[in-house]
Amino acid sequence: MSRLLSHEPFIAHSLLVKQFQQLFSASSELGATPAGGLHRLAASYEDGLARDHLKAWMQDQQLDVRIDSVGNLFGLATFNPGAPYILCGSHLDSQPTAGRFDGAYGVIAGAVAVAALAEEFRQQRITPQFNLGVVNWTNEEGARYQPSLIGSSVFTGSLAAVDALAIEDGDGIALGSALESIGYQGESAVTLPLAAYVEIHVEQGTDLTENHQAIGVVRNTWAALKLTLCFEGYQAHTGPTPMIERQDALLAAAHAITFARELADEFPRRLHSSVGRMEVYPNSPNVVPSRVTAYVEFRSQEQDLLTKVLNRFDARIAQIAQQTNTAYQVLSRQLRNSIVMDNRLAELAHKVCEELGLPSADSTTVAGHDAVNISRVAPSLLLFVPSRDGIAHNEAEFTTDQDLHNGLYTLSSLLRCASLGRGLTGKANTDDRP
Amino acid sequence: MSRLLSHEPFIAHSLLVKQFQQLFSASSELGATPAGGLHRLAASYEDGLARDHLKAWMQDQQLDVRIDSVGNLFGLATFNPGAPYILCGSHLDSQPTAGRFDGAYGVIAGAVAVAALAEEFRQQRITPQFNLGVVNWTNEEGARYQPSLIGSSVFTGSLAAVDALAIEDGDGIALGSALESIGYQGESAVTLPLAAYVEIHVEQGTDLTENHQAIGVVRNTWAALKLTLCFEGYQAHTGPTPMIERQDALLAAAHAITFARELADEFPRRLHSSVGRMEVYPNSPNVVPSRVTAYVEFRSQEQDLLTKVLNRFDARIAQIAQQTNTAYQVLSRQLRNSIVMDNRLAELAHKVCEELGLPSADSTTVAGHDAVNISRVAPSLLLFVPSRDGIAHNEAEFTTDQDLHNGLYTLSSLLRCASLGRGLTGKANTDDRP
Repeated sequence: MSRLLSHEPFIAHSLLVKQFQQLFSASSELGATPAGGLHRLAASYEDGLARDHLKAWMQDQQLDVRIDSVGNLFGLATFNPGAPYILCGSHLDSQPTAGRFDGAYGVIAGAVAVAALAEEFRQQRITPQFNLGVVNWTNEEGARYQPSLIGSSVFTGSLAAVDALAIEDGDGIALGSALESIGYQGESAVTLPLAAYVEIHVEQGTDLTENHQAIGVVRNTWAALKLTLCFEGYQAHTGPTPMIERQDALLAAAHAITFARELADEFPRRLHSSVGRMEVYPNSPNVVPSRVTAYVEFRSQEQDLLTKVLNRFDARIAQIAQQTNTAYQVLSRQLRNSIVMDNRLAELAHKVCEELGLPSADSTTVAGHDAVNISRVAPSLLLFVPSRDGIAHNEAEFTTDQDLHNGLYTLSSLLRCASLGRGLTGKANTDDRP
Repeated sequence: MSRLLSHEPFIAHSLLVKQFQQLFSASSELGATPAGGLHRLAASYEDGLARDHLKAWMQDQQLDVRIDSVGNLFGLATFNPGAPYILCGSHLDSQPTAGRFDGAYGVIAGAVAVAALAEEFRQQRITPQFNLGVVNWTNEEGARYQPSLIGSSVFTGSLAAVDALAIEDGDGIALGSALESIGYQGESAVTLPLAAYVEIHVEQGTDLTENHQAIGVVRNTWAALKLTLCFEGYQAHTGPTPMIERQDALLAAAHAITFARELADEFPRRLHSSVGRMEVYPNSPNVVPSRVTAYVEFRSQEQDLLTKVLNRFDARIAQIAQQTNTAYQVLSRQLRNSIVMDNRLAELAHKVCEELGLPSADSTTVAGHDAVNISRVAPSLLLFVPSRDGIAHNEAEFTTDQDLHNGLYTLSSLLRCASLGRGLTGKANTDDRP
């Protein structure tokens, strides 16, 4: 393969970095926590501020701003009407009291890269083979609204917009109302033919740091099984009600939580499990809980193991319900299969890194990302930059400027040559997976 | 002992019942649930409606209405300035989706009885030895604000009003603000010299029904130990974070919940335990919980057993924290000793029932009640009427009209003779207990 990146005029790296730093710093203030983190739940006031800020910047850069029916915010640079797009992006929403890099980095880096390339192509009167775009997906985190990845799921068609908009948060506020209140419920779908989707994200693990790599190229993902499990007991006084008559939904949930952990301990490093969210009703100190909803996750790279574990968990839940005299329902059961990411884009990423002199390595993601979702409908690439100690979903999350800039450089170089049709040789290996 | 109730003119029972039914029906509408229960949390809008309704009725009846600094609402009939009061009452607040009898019955029955007696004494130009009063205590339930029994605790001086008013609900709304918003934060304490406190309440157990008794006379109470226990872990991603590094506060709480139940199972019928309320932070499906607060209760008639159980629970909590790599704090630890209620009032109650032809029996309360709180500073009587299947803190709670009317008859007769100084012979056995 010949060099991909040489001999073209290109926006100076130092200018790109300057723009990124300005935009990222300003955006990080919107929902900042005193400890230097970010608290910017999907479709919240703070999310609205961050969206407004990005939207205004993209408009200044003459990107074509579009908002779809679930609030996905696009900035498009269309050089060649009718040609497919190479889209990049991530999400501006965060977990509660979380870090400022997760998601936001990919959106800001993508916006800066797309705007710079659009400017270059205009100035140089170059018409690239593919159009470019950046996107901020709605509610990637799944913190305020369950499930996660709502915006990209609607985009790919696996979730109907009308269903997504009806999902309520813990206070009963529908996503549609929340988006409307911040001015981000668009009127219709934004339909884009995609040549490729590229997302850059902090690693949330320690492999890159331990192996002295600048860029991780994700090749595959862990499978995940997400259950919303509801135990139903009987509301009663915690004082006089005889113990033998109690139907305690919280006791049932507690047994389920400890069992989910026991399963993970049985398969060290091969199985992750967690219960991160619980809703307890009526949640009064003097009342035996009558309804508890627990959000249970199991993750593994081995889909067979996940199936086996699920069978055992199901059997145990039935047993717990019997022992605690409660009933139970599985309100939702979502299996995310293990995915192999697009090989051609991954190879291109390695080649770009090599030409830039940045060490890169193949990687795996345990966490879900919008890129994994989009890979079901278009060739997708997920890139990682190092994150200190792998700390994620925590205010202490951190990535150095150097690592951020390396990622930005890689992303913009890759988008440039891909939009010019270079390096995208060979057949895509992505097919539609269930 | 000579007859207590004969030979006096007295308001017709049928009129008393009619007044009670009208007031109770109207009050039960304020915060009613579709299933026939009540959802009237302390200092909520609905609680404000119920208070307004009672206040207007008491004013119509020429009772002297007073509101103290924590919203306790008094209706006083002062015949003999300077003489002590015989106070009756209970609470208008409810648990979430609870029954319409718990608390409200005692307030409405008390108000009707006091108003009728005041009218009789005025008409008959009788000056009784003791004044009369009825009270609605603020936040008996402890559902919206923890701890329970806030109003009566401030009245007895065991909780400072300023501290009570600063207590916040789950949404961060202070009790003081909530009371102010419904117009029930009075300006100062209402200081009443008390000769006696009398409370009538539904049983929340099945002893009366099983033994065909109309009235239960509570002789003693179970001790209760209430812990607010907080586990602190480390916020992390539920996906990639290695299981071995997780510090999962919810997992720790789940172990504590199952252990609290194991302890109760070890001492059948002698120990009750529960966890009714939990607060989980950040409570997002994809985040390992960093902070979980659990409200744990142990109850027993045997104070020694409670001490022994607490020691074992403490030891287990320390072990759980070590095993889950979490830290823990006991945010509050409240011991409510087992109390012996006033013997003289109890004997009087049995005598009154006997003269009324109503079968009565000694009883015990497992649940806390304002009467138990007040018994620390004044001779107190707690009466029970039957409750179907002992169902409490549930919309299905039910007591028949006949049982309600029997209780009303007992209460009004007892207040009448006690206010006239009859039957209160012998020495009170109530002393100040810790």
